[in-house]
Amino acid sequence: MDAKICAALLSQVRETRPLVHHITNTVTINDCANITICAGAAPVMAEAAEESAEMVAAAGVLVLNIGTLNPAQVESMLLAGKRANELGVPVVLDPVGAGATALRTDAVLRILKEVKVAVLKGNAGEIGVLAGAGGKVRGVDSCGLAGDPVETAKACALATGTVVAMTDETDVVTDGERVVLVKNGHAMMDRLSGTGCMASSVVGSFVAVADDPLVGAAAALAAFGRAGEQAAAGARGPYSFRTALFDELYALTPEDLEEEARLEVV
Amino acid sequence: MDAKICAALLSQVRETRPLVHHITNTVTINDCANITICAGAAPVMAEAAEESAEMVAAAGVLVLNIGTLNPAQVESMLLAGKRANELGVPVVLDPVGAGATALRTDAVLRILKEVKVAVLKGNAGEIGVLAGAGGKVRGVDSCGLAGDPVETAKACALATGTVVAMTDETDVVTDGERVVLVKNGHAMMDRLSGTGCMASSVVGSFVAVADDPLVGAAAALAAFGRAGEQAAAGARGPYSFRTALFDELYALTPEDLEEEARLEVV
Amino acid sequence: MDAKICAALLSQVRETRPLVHHITNTVTINDCANITICAGAAPVMAEAAEESAEMVAAAGVLVLNIGTLNPAQVESMLLAGKRANELGVPVVLDPVGAGATALRTDAVLRILKEVKVAVLKGNAGEIGVLAGAGGKVRGVDSCGLAGDPVETAKACALATGTVVAMTDETDVVTDGERVVLVKNGHAMMDRLSGTGCMASSVVGSFVAVADDPLVGAAAALAAFGRAGEQAAAGARGPYSFRTALFDELYALTPEDLEEEARLEVV
Repeated sequence: MDAKICAALLSQVRETRPLVHHITNTVTINDCANITICAGAAPVMAEAAEESAEMVAAAGVLVLNIGTLNPAQVESMLLAGKRANELGVPVVLDPVGAGATALRTDAVLRILKEVKVAVLKGNAGEIGVLAGAGGKVRGVDSCGLAGDPVETAKACALATGTVVAMTDETDVVTDGERVVLVKNGHAMMDRLSGTGCMASSVVGSFVAVADDPLVGAAAALAAFGRAGEQAAAGARGPYSFRTALFDELYALTPEDLEEEARLEVV
Repeated sequence: MDAKICAALLSQVRETRPLVHHITNTVTINDCANITICAGAAPVMAEAAEESAEMVAAAGVLVLNIGTLNPAQVESMLLAGKRANELGVPVVLDPVGAGATALRTDAVLRILKEVKVAVLKGNAGEIGVLAGAGGKVRGVDSCGLAGDPVETAKACALATGTVVAMTDETDVVTDGERVVLVKNGHAMMDRLSGTGCMASSVVGSFVAVADDPLVGAAAALAAFGRAGEQAAAGARGPYSFRTALFDELYALTPEDLEEEARLEVV
Repeated sequence: MDAKICAALLSQVRETRPLVHHITNTVTINDCANITICAGAAPVMAEAAEESAEMVAAAGVLVLNIGTLNPAQVESMLLAGKRANELGVPVVLDPVGAGATALRTDAVLRILKEVKVAVLKGNAGEIGVLAGAGGKVRGVDSCGLAGDPVETAKACALATGTVVAMTDETDVVTDGERVVLVKNGHAMMDRLSGTGCMASSVVGSFVAVADDPLVGAAAALAAFGRAGEQAAAGARGPYSFRTALFDELYALTPEDLEEEARLEVV
């Protein structure tokens, strides 16, 4: 896994424009739609249980995000997720706020049990909770980990049978054996609501075209982080940063990504 | 129908500030509220069946948009739509994703059967599906038409008994007999989520004050398209374009619209 | 109550970063999340009845906003509100559109009856309706008051047993005895959807750290209004104003607020 592969996958997203089917929260749903377009893919949001499984048939990936979950939405996620599994459509799960309430933790565990998830993309607190390794979550924010980040992510990947993409200052992407660290990104991304959700949409866009979900997830985080670095350069505050973040991901070239992706295979 | 009428209707929206009652999707609901303000009208979003029909009584127009529909929302749309018909409040329908799932197509057909719709505003794929003329829809995006755009829009208008406003590079507005082409707009509008939904809100704002829904819809698409042209001038990417799109519609003067509306009556 | 206290409370929000738990509408939910961050606090949105009361336990304040209410959401608000009362977590209520439909007015009256609300933050029309003093509301917009603003706000505070924060060109904050006028703000804030909701989120952020809800609410409105003044300076229209509004609140210093807060104790 190297920067060349990141660049190749970005080109592939742009060329094939996969449909990224989201069942997601109402806080950042617009951000997720627009960042998907800026990554080069096509978003659709279809949540009703009456259509979510049908929509999966046209999709290149299914992104599940529990940011404003309710029991009916979880049922729809299960229906869509199972259909995705039947069709070979990869599933990305963002366990927003897992550990903060029982509803959230239970929903994630149930989805992980009933649906084969390709990539579990969470912050350090959420992944720590799901690894049973002392993650701390307040609301939807990570308050850190008790133990070593790489070991925690690996434990979570082994426990859940997924590729774990744990975002933090350095992102850790692992299937329990292989580990890729992604060092792109900027602190300003934490001063904006929804960057975690957007990261999941970008991961979805790349996983839709990647043969290996680990490689797709790492490349996506490098691309999104690189856009964040570029956006921070001219931003006056969180909202001008936001405008620039979308514009920069849209403008990101495979050439720039190949040069600037900061990956470390450990 | 000429550019002078577009300018006059824009002035009338600004002077009377009609209330535009939306029952709409969660992806672009904020965009719809803000673009309505920028057009010169006043938005309200009231979706619960317990109040949607009551809210209609104060409204100048009802905009129905099925972008994230569910069965309960469709019932509320029907209640509000029937009340709007009783009160003589015009109804605009945006059939987002019709053709992509049975839930969407069926909901549109049911609304069209039970509610008198003044303007059906869809993309080429959606209108093609509703005309039974080989429209192609992937997620919520048009993938084009099998036949001639004008003939398809006319067929849809005659089949549904509405004014059809079909958006594409050239927009086609028709009641099945009269046809107006609107050539304003910019390709950047396709690189932003929600421009189709925003167009419906602007159409609603104009239809609220127009005697003739066909004229109102065409004038609205000219105004919104003109704002898009202006916005594209200085935009660095989709999100700076977005900021400019709202600002430009807000700043659009009747004088500029009279000069720049590109209509063709065929 | 003076500008020094406003500055001290702003510092306190930034230092303690209270969790602001929202049950709110789908139109402006993203704005509320981001403005909370820009104020210096941490937002969380958890609406399902299955988790809303549990989430309150971690929160510094609960903000209830009925902008797109439905009966299930009102039940969740009641559950969370009662739990907040048990835990001593202050509750802020934004009665969006009270007076426009029976569902809205009844929901506000029920919440006020069953939950001890610390601050009731509404526009002039809404507060006029709740005071039984001839408020006029069209959709979610205030169309003004029949009587004197200060007397109306005082009457509403006494009738509801809350601190009333009534926003208008001059904001009136009162517990029925004490009255603080806040004169910060800019007319451009009315040309943007969601500034009322954002104001409630900022009020929540300050009330979470203030000993006295009246002082917290007044300081919050001064801070938010001051950001609006700064933002209007360079804005080309409502959307560039919006970008600047978030950036300016984020950049607002206690020193600037101490100098520029325009309060009048009457």
